[in-house]
Amino acid sequence: MSQIRVAFIGLGVMGYPMAGHCQKAGFPVTVYNRTTVKAEQWSQEFGGDFAATPREAAEQADFVLVCVGNDEDVRSVMMGDDGVLAGIGQGSIVIDHTTTSAELARELNEAAHAAGAEFLDAPVSGGQAGAENGQLAIMAGGEASAFARAEPVFAAYGKAWDLLGPAGSGQQCKMVNQICIAGILQGLSEGLALAMSSGLDVEKVQKILSGGAAQSWQLENRAHTMARDEYDFGFAIDWMVKDLGYSLEEAERRGLTLPVASQVRSFYQELQAQGMNRCDTSVLLRRLIK
Amino acid sequence: MSQIRVAFIGLGVMGYPMAGHCQKAGFPVTVYNRTTVKAEQWSQEFGGDFAATPREAAEQADFVLVCVGNDEDVRSVMMGDDGVLAGIGQGSIVIDHTTTSAELARELNEAAHAAGAEFLDAPVSGGQAGAENGQLAIMAGGEASAFARAEPVFAAYGKAWDLLGPAGSGQQCKMVNQICIAGILQGLSEGLALAMSSGLDVEKVQKILSGGAAQSWQLENRAHTMARDEYDFGFAIDWMVKDLGYSLEEAERRGLTLPVASQVRSFYQELQAQGMNRCDTSVLLRRLIK
Repeated sequence: MSQIRVAFIGLGVMGYPMAGHCQKAGFPVTVYNRTTVKAEQWSQEFGGDFAATPREAAEQADFVLVCVGNDEDVRSVMMGDDGVLAGIGQGSIVIDHTTTSAELARELNEAAHAAGAEFLDAPVSGGQAGAENGQLAIMAGGEASAFARAEPVFAAYGKAWDLLGPAGSGQQCKMVNQICIAGILQGLSEGLALAMSSGLDVEKVQKILSGGAAQSWQLENRAHTMARDEYDFGFAIDWMVKDLGYSLEEAERRGLTLPVASQVRSFYQELQAQGMNRCDTSVLLRRLIK
Repeated sequence: MSQIRVAFIGLGVMGYPMAGHCQKAGFPVTVYNRTTVKAEQWSQEFGGDFAATPREAAEQADFVLVCVGNDEDVRSVMMGDDGVLAGIGQGSIVIDHTTTSAELARELNEAAHAAGAEFLDAPVSGGQAGAENGQLAIMAGGEASAFARAEPVFAAYGKAWDLLGPAGSGQQCKMVNQICIAGILQGLSEGLALAMSSGLDVEKVQKILSGGAAQSWQLENRAHTMARDEYDFGFAIDWMVKDLGYSLEEAERRGLTLPVASQVRSFYQELQAQGMNRCDTSVLLRRLIK
């Protein structure tokens, strides 16, 4: 079996370490990044190559991994004369780790097949720490044969991965994740607002609630930082506004109304307008107590 | 040290096994229940006594434990010529395990002190299973000296207990619990509505989400039953409507607006009106998909 060659497009806080894990796992990696200096830095750190365009990065690759910002960013690296699909080889697989709309995933799946390649939408959860530690959860959509071939690559930076269904299913699963988090964080914020205005010790409240039906990852990992008004870390609300936007579009496409996801998104937009766009998603508490 | 004598008022799905645990722990128990046949049944099963009125049950007790339905029920067993406070001994402790308003807890604390007794508000979480297995979490409010004396009693049916602050603090902590659950369940319902209408396998979604920031007790324990449209078990929305009602009153008293707790309560009221009042709180999904 010949060596698996990987191209990695997008060296942000997620992509940079993910590409590094691929190189360390023994897959020769060629990276592309819009800002070239970052690609040079990555190349120096991990020893892989860097390319001048997404097309050039894709040309020799068995897997082209993409991890950029949003639908528009994905389109810009995939399409056009310098895009991934212009350089992709027959039978190669494009894996988009960006959180995008499910509509885009379905569209790129078509486009990849038209170019003789395969496609998986595969958004991740676990954040920057998960990317750095190679402990991401990967939610994939696409064909089972492509998924099976991708598993050795996922193993380089993932702790869990599953195929949820056809193209777009990975994005839909990530939407479920973000919608759940929206409800959890708003409920937690409302609960802590009452606790704090009642003079309760949040540490005690967190401890006793964590043993029961109100338990959540957010309660265990964010109640303390929220009580200390600390939000300069974690998952920025700019990203959550984008993700919930795609979620609400997908819900509408299916005739669903998601009142709390919709409301929480509007709360985040309020906070963005107040300059808190880089704050962690747990910042919802700030809307409730001054 | 003389034996601790317990009176237990209210033999519902929670009180019946809790009183049993006290008797089995070696505290002689006298029970009172509005429906006498239940008290007789309890007495036959566990060997303790039963009394004709709350007053009579309280007369010889060091601890009077109350676990009934709502504020009105608590008032009716505490007050009046036949009530607990008419029979309570000097220095005895009343522990109210009912989930009530914090206002009632503060009022009963005053009334108990006026009668020469002490008071703890001590709502529980863990549900019927927790009561039966002696694994409840107990959130107490009141004086530290009373709390310290009560710990051997809590040990009979609790797995965790803490003193949150002065009278009413136990109820406030329970409110935080219920508010968190409201947000978690509505978020989970909206997420599962999208998952199911997208044709995703809920088991796979639950498994991959449980490893990350969307993890919750509700996701792990209710996603499967929700996907199967099973709601004839668990915590009835009748109780949740009551609990969230007290929570919203307490929030208003503190000048707080809790948009999601308020909205989820109105969703539960819709479901009550449709005859689903005994369904588990996870039934929120039924509002979203038919």
